[in-house]
Amino acid sequence: MQRAAVLVRRGSYPRAAGSWGRSQSSAAAEASPALKVRPERGPRDRILTLESMNPQVKAVEYAVRGPIVLKAGEIEMELQRGIKKPFTEVIRANIGDAHAMGQQPITFLRQVMALCTYPNLLSSPSFPEDAKKRARRILQACGGNSLGSYSASQGVNCIREDVAAFITRRDGVPADPDNIYLTTGASDGISTILKLLVSGGGKSRTGVLIPIPQYPLYSAVISELDAVQVNYYLDEENCWALNVNELRRAVREAKDYCDPKVLCIINPGNPTGQVQSRKCIEDVIHLAWEEKLFLLADEVYQDNVYSLDCKFHSFKKVLYKMGHEYSGNVELASFYSTSKGYMGECGYRGGYMEVINLHPDIKGQLVKLLSVRLCPPVSGQAAMDIVVNPPVPGEESFEQFSREKELVLGNLAKKAKLTEDLFNQVPGIHCNPLQGAMYAFPRILIPAKAVEAAQSHKMAPDMFYCMKLLEETGICVVPGSGFGQREGTYHFRMTILPPVEKLKIVLQKVKDFHIKFLEKYA
Amino acid sequence: MQRAAVLVRRGSYPRAAGSWGRSQSSAAAEASPALKVRPERGPRDRILTLESMNPQVKAVEYAVRGPIVLKAGEIEMELQRGIKKPFTEVIRANIGDAHAMGQQPITFLRQVMALCTYPNLLSSPSFPEDAKKRARRILQACGGNSLGSYSASQGVNCIREDVAAFITRRDGVPADPDNIYLTTGASDGISTILKLLVSGGGKSRTGVLIPIPQYPLYSAVISELDAVQVNYYLDEENCWALNVNELRRAVREAKDYCDPKVLCIINPGNPTGQVQSRKCIEDVIHLAWEEKLFLLADEVYQDNVYSLDCKFHSFKKVLYKMGHEYSGNVELASFYSTSKGYMGECGYRGGYMEVINLHPDIKGQLVKLLSVRLCPPVSGQAAMDIVVNPPVPGEESFEQFSREKELVLGNLAKKAKLTEDLFNQVPGIHCNPLQGAMYAFPRILIPAKAVEAAQSHKMAPDMFYCMKLLEETGICVVPGSGFGQREGTYHFRMTILPPVEKLKIVLQKVKDFHIKFLEKYA
Repeated sequence: MQRAAVLVRRGSYPRAAGSWGRSQSSAAAEASPALKVRPERGPRDRILTLESMNPQVKAVEYAVRGPIVLKAGEIEMELQRGIKKPFTEVIRANIGDAHAMGQQPITFLRQVMALCTYPNLLSSPSFPEDAKKRARRILQACGGNSLGSYSASQGVNCIREDVAAFITRRDGVPADPDNIYLTTGASDGISTILKLLVSGGGKSRTGVLIPIPQYPLYSAVISELDAVQVNYYLDEENCWALNVNELRRAVREAKDYCDPKVLCIINPGNPTGQVQSRKCIEDVIHLAWEEKLFLLADEVYQDNVYSLDCKFHSFKKVLYKMGHEYSGNVELASFYSTSKGYMGECGYRGGYMEVINLHPDIKGQLVKLLSVRLCPPVSGQAAMDIVVNPPVPGEESFEQFSREKELVLGNLAKKAKLTEDLFNQVPGIHCNPLQGAMYAFPRILIPAKAVEAAQSHKMAPDMFYCMKLLEETGICVVPGSGFGQREGTYHFRMTILPPVEKLKIVLQKVKDFHIKFLEKYA
Repeated sequence: MQRAAVLVRRGSYPRAAGSWGRSQSSAAAEASPALKVRPERGPRDRILTLESMNPQVKAVEYAVRGPIVLKAGEIEMELQRGIKKPFTEVIRANIGDAHAMGQQPITFLRQVMALCTYPNLLSSPSFPEDAKKRARRILQACGGNSLGSYSASQGVNCIREDVAAFITRRDGVPADPDNIYLTTGASDGISTILKLLVSGGGKSRTGVLIPIPQYPLYSAVISELDAVQVNYYLDEENCWALNVNELRRAVREAKDYCDPKVLCIINPGNPTGQVQSRKCIEDVIHLAWEEKLFLLADEVYQDNVYSLDCKFHSFKKVLYKMGHEYSGNVELASFYSTSKGYMGECGYRGGYMEVINLHPDIKGQLVKLLSVRLCPPVSGQAAMDIVVNPPVPGEESFEQFSREKELVLGNLAKKAKLTEDLFNQVPGIHCNPLQGAMYAFPRILIPAKAVEAAQSHKMAPDMFYCMKLLEETGICVVPGSGFGQREGTYHFRMTILPPVEKLKIVLQKVKDFHIKFLEKYA
C-alpha cells in the first residue's frame, strides 16, 4: 500500500479514531491545523433516499402485507400493552397462512422432514418405515447426504423426477424432469420467468397481461422489471370467469403502447377463487397460440377446488390434448407450491415450475440465472418432494395421511360455502361462489358519504373501509384496490382459513360492522 | 361470456381438440372450410429466444456454476456409465459447499432444527434440554407455533433479537433488532440492497465498486440491474490487500461515466482470502464518508480466519469506533450467512443483514420490497438463530458444540497452510497466504503456446487450463477469469474443503498436472 499518500489524505478526517487503539497517523491528523479550520458539519444527507432510490422499486405495491397489515401489528402491540379495544385479538385474515390460523401440519410430511434434518432419527422406532424410505431417498440425492449442501440450481435430481412423475399421474401426459425447476415458493419461479421475458424499450417494451383482480406479486414484479402491465378484467357478473373476448380486447389495445407477449393466468383464481373450465383454458391457449403470447399458469391452488361442478384442469394437460400444433409450440410455464393446498407449508418456501417448449438456449440462460442465487432452500425442496410423492395405499402412513388431507380440504369446502352464504345475507355485500383457492372477494357497497370521508383521509374508499373494520373488530382483510377492481366497485379479500367456529364469529362481526357502516354513512 | 364471438373466432384453430372430450364448438371448427384452405404450418418460432430475452440477464455471468461445472456433471455421468477415465471420481472444489465435501453438520444445530420441524420430539428423552429450550423459543415466535407459517417479511422477531445480541457481543457496540433483516442466504440480502440503490440513466447511472477479483454474485447482480460495474483491483503483491489509493483511483475515473455511489467489500476475501486490517477498514470507511459511498460489507467468512496475525474486524465495529460523525452518517449494510463459517449449512439458505443509517423511508421501502417474496425460509431463519445463539458454558451441549466447531475450524486452518505451502513448491504457481475464507486463488503461469491453444478453442487461457485439469484429473476448479483478474495474469479458485488426506492427493494431482502442462506447452 502507498502509505504516504494515505497519510496526506488523512488530514481530512472529520474526527479521529478516538480512544479505541488509535493509530499514529490518525493521532497526527487530529492535531493538524487543517482540521481545525474546517467548518463544523451537521448530520449529512443520506445517499439512499426516496428521491435517489430505484424508481421501479419505489413504484412497487404489495397490499397483502401493506399498510393495513402494519396497522394490524400496531394494534396487536397496543393490546399486549393492555390498551382496551372492542376486541381481544387481531385476526389476520389478510394472507393465506394456514398454520398461523391453527391448521396442523401433515404428520407424514413433518416426519420425513425431521428424518432428513437429523438422520440419527432413521434408527428410531418411533418413525414409520415409509417416512424413512422417503427420507433416505432424498438424503441419498443430497451432496454429503445432507440437507445442508447446496443442490443443483435447478433442484435436487430425484425430487425433479418425483415432480415429473406426479405431473404425469395428474395429467395423463408425460412430464420430463429436465423441464422441472424447483423454486423458492412459486413467487420465485414467477418472477424468474418474468425476468427472462422482459426486454425492449418504448412501444416495444414487453407487455404482461394480468387478470384484474390479480395477486399483487404480478404487478409488483412487473413494476420492478419496468415491464408494461396490461390488464384484462375478470367477469364478476359471471363468477369471475375469464372472458376470452376481454382478453382479446386487452391484447389489441396494448399493441398501441407496448409489445404484449406474456399472459398470466391464475387458476384457481386469487383473490377471486374461480376455477376455469376446460373450454375456457382451450380458448386461452388458442389465443396465446394466435397472438404469440408466452403463458404463465399460476396453479398453486390446484388442490383447493370446492364447488362440486368444478374440476381443476392444468394448462399443461389441456395444451397436450389440443394436439401437437399447440403442444409443440405454445410456450408455457406453470407453477405449484408447498404453501397452499392441504399442506399449507408456507414457511419452507418450496415450489416448482414446469416449462414447456422453452427454447434450449433459454434453458441454459435460466439455469445460469438461477445459479447466481445458488439453489432453492433444500428443506423446501424436500417438502415439495413429499407433496408430490405422498404415501400410497398399502404404505403404513397412507391412512393417517389421507385422513389429515381430507380433513383440511373438507373443512375448507365447508368454510367456502359458509362464507358465500353468510356474506350474501348481508345487504350491500355480494359474494360470488368460492369455487376454489382460499379467499372470499366480496363486493361491498360503500355509500357516497363514506367515499367522501375516505377522500378526506386521502385513502381509497375500500382501504378506509378495511381500516375501520380492523379498528372496530380486529379483523384484518385486504382492500380490493390492492388487487385491482373495476372503477367504482369495491371489494376486500378475506381468507377462509380460521377454524369453522371462529370463522362464523368473524363473518358475524363483518356483517354487524357492515350494517353499522352503511347506517353511519347513509 | 359472449359465446357467439368466441365461436366465430374458433374457426381459426389450427387443429381441433382431438379425441379428448372435444367440445361442440371446436368440432364445428374442424369441419369449417376456412380451416382447410389455411396453409400447413411448420414449428413456429419461439417467443422467448436469445434475441428476444432480457439483455441484462443474457449478460449475466456466474462462473462458480458455469461451463466448467456443467462439464464436471457430464464427466460424472460418463463415469457412472462405466466410461474409463484417468480418475474414478470428480472432486468438486469449485464451490464452498462444506457438507458435500464430507464435513459433518453441527449436532446441536440439527437437533434444534429437528425439534422445530417435528415438535412431537420435544417430549423425547434423546434430545438435550438446551436444544429443546432453543426450539421452544423459536416455535413460540412462529405463527401457530409452526415453521410452516410465513414469518414477518423482515424475519421472525425473536431471531432478529438474537442476531442483535450476537452482534452486540461480537462488536461491543449495540445493535438494534429493527436494523436486522433475515435473508435467503447472504446473496439475497446483497441483491436486495443493490436493487434499492440502482437508479439514474446515462452518466448518472449508479456505479457499484467491486473488488477484482470478486465473488461473481456482484457482477451478476450489477448486470441484472443494469448498473455500472466499477472495478478496483486488490493488490496481489501485497497478499491481496485492499489499497485505498487504488479505490480512490477507481472512484475518480468512474465519475466520468457513471455515479459511483456503492462500495462493496468482501472481508475475509472471496476468492482471495485476505483479512483486512483495522487500519484498512478505517481508510475505507473514511473514503466512503468522503466520497458519499453506500457501503456493503460482505462478512460471510467472519468465522474463517486462519493466519495467526490476522483478526476479523467488522465494518460496524470499526465504524462505531471512529466516532459519531462516521457512525451517525455512513450508510452500511453488512451480511452474514449460515452457509460458511464452521456450520456450512448452505442448503438452508439462512442469512441476515444489518443496516446502519438507513433512512427511515428506505426501511419502509425495503420491507415492502421484501414482502413481495413474503419471507425468507423459516427453517433457514431457525438455522441462523442457532448460529447466533449457540450453547453457552454450563449448558448441556456446550462441550460437544465447542468440540465440533473447533474441529472444523482447526482443520480448515491446517488445510489453508498446507495448500499455500504445497502450491508454492510448484514451479509456475504462486499462492498468497490463505488468511481466511475457504479458498486458494493461486496465480498460475500459462505458457504462450497454451494461450495460443486456448485462443484456437475460443477459450480464456485459464478456462482452457481448468478444463484440461478437469478432464485429466477429475478436479473441478473455477478459472480466475470468472472472478476477474489483472490483464495477462491467470488464476483459479479451489476450495480447501476436502478432508485433509484427500486434499493432499488433490494438491499433488494439481502439481503433477501443472508440471506436465508446462512441459507440453513449453
